[in-house]
Amino acid sequence: MRWVAATIAYDGTNFFGYQSQCGVRTVQDELEKSLEIIFKEKIPTYGCGRTDTGVHAIGQVVSFYVPNDNMTEKNVKDALNAMLPEDIYVREIKQVEANFNPRAQATKRIYFYLIYVDKEPDIFLRNRVWWVPFALDIKKMREAARYFEGEHDFTTFRAGNDERNPIRTVYRVRILNYRKNFICIRIEGKSFLRRMIRNMVSALVKVGTGTWEPERIKIILEARQRSLAPGSAPAQGLYFYSALF
Amino acid sequence: MRWVAATIAYDGTNFFGYQSQCGVRTVQDELEKSLEIIFKEKIPTYGCGRTDTGVHAIGQVVSFYVPNDNMTEKNVKDALNAMLPEDIYVREIKQVEANFNPRAQATKRIYFYLIYVDKEPDIFLRNRVWWVPFALDIKKMREAARYFEGEHDFTTFRAGNDERNPIRTVYRVRILNYRKNFICIRIEGKSFLRRMIRNMVSALVKVGTGTWEPERIKIILEARQRSLAPGSAPAQGLYFYSALF
Repeated sequence: MRWVAATIAYDGTNFFGYQSQCGVRTVQDELEKSLEIIFKEKIPTYGCGRTDTGVHAIGQVVSFYVPNDNMTEKNVKDALNAMLPEDIYVREIKQVEANFNPRAQATKRIYFYLIYVDKEPDIFLRNRVWWVPFALDIKKMREAARYFEGEHDFTTFRAGNDERNPIRTVYRVRILNYRKNFICIRIEGKSFLRRMIRNMVSALVKVGTGTWEPERIKIILEARQRSLAPGSAPAQGLYFYSALF
Repeated sequence: MRWVAATIAYDGTNFFGYQSQCGVRTVQDELEKSLEIIFKEKIPTYGCGRTDTGVHAIGQVVSFYVPNDNMTEKNVKDALNAMLPEDIYVREIKQVEANFNPRAQATKRIYFYLIYVDKEPDIFLRNRVWWVPFALDIKKMREAARYFEGEHDFTTFRAGNDERNPIRTVYRVRILNYRKNFICIRIEGKSFLRRMIRNMVSALVKVGTGTWEPERIKIILEARQRSLAPGSAPAQGLYFYSALF
């Protein structure tokens, strides 16, 4: 018996998030179902990030033990990809130390948020981006983004049902503009509160449209009051990109 | 009362093709359902190309009459987009002469076929491209593509159930390579037989992988025998790009 970590991509559109939940389709349940078929026993899995309904992953990390020592990492990858539904794909499997827990051990998580800026929507991107039909001022958004960096109390930007310690450290927020219509907000941190990234993104878009001045981010962050943040940016633009350990 | 032509994009994934069919979801039925709600009468529509199940459109053209003279083209566009499901989008509506029939009057149709070349699949593209996990020789594909151009009997490349005159004129086949992993085959012609483009594409891929020499295209085309063509390329890579009149 040995432990492995799988790097997994999924299209979150048809999942009720990553984490197991009774009666709805989740990524974790699909993974565990496939593992049970392959190894003929229940194998518990440990994911790195609990992405919400509709949120995607390019590099979710999930650890579990492999009871069958005859199978190489490549064999486990191929077996899983043969069993898994078409909206989950195992990109890599590598051996890790016993009881490796990606959630507890991650030192950095990187998320992407994709915005599509155009007067008209692109139906082929409807589950992949947040469509914003007006120009965004990238320079102002970059100015605003700096206020998020560092250690702060993110009470203003968390979800109402997240009761954990609201102090989080955001290492870096980068705003990239590519192929004319796409804005990618890349956010790095050790860990995030529920809805925190989507709430940060919607605030940045308020700045981008000119509704808010960049300094407003600093003010509402310091106020530690949830009611001051705008509604969350839609789930379909968010991607769990990778985790470092 | 006046006639208009709508330019329509749709994601073909969840449609049983463009054309109305009893008991299944089609693009035409969704359009006519929305028109009936807006105008409170049944409005027949005339499409340009009968795309198959899973095939997409960026610029399908559909004509119909507008019984309500108080509505501008913009009003009709907005009303339709408000009513239509999220996988159909009306990009433009403009006035045309009475009884304009896009199917009969098109002088040119342009299709795109998208291939994604990489060792690993990209789940986010699974309904948008044909994933081919080995390198393709673009130069040889271009050489082969030339044999399709001009007027030919396309019996070898048509679907078994297409009983129409098999003579068709292909104006141009372009093979474009962009962003490293993408190959786009752009095919222009006056009209096409059923499955003809997907059968042409799968033959070009046979050439690209080195299984066939480019000249084989000329030989099987001249043989006019369906059994000589490979199976059709998958529907999800095909896009009805535009039509000229």
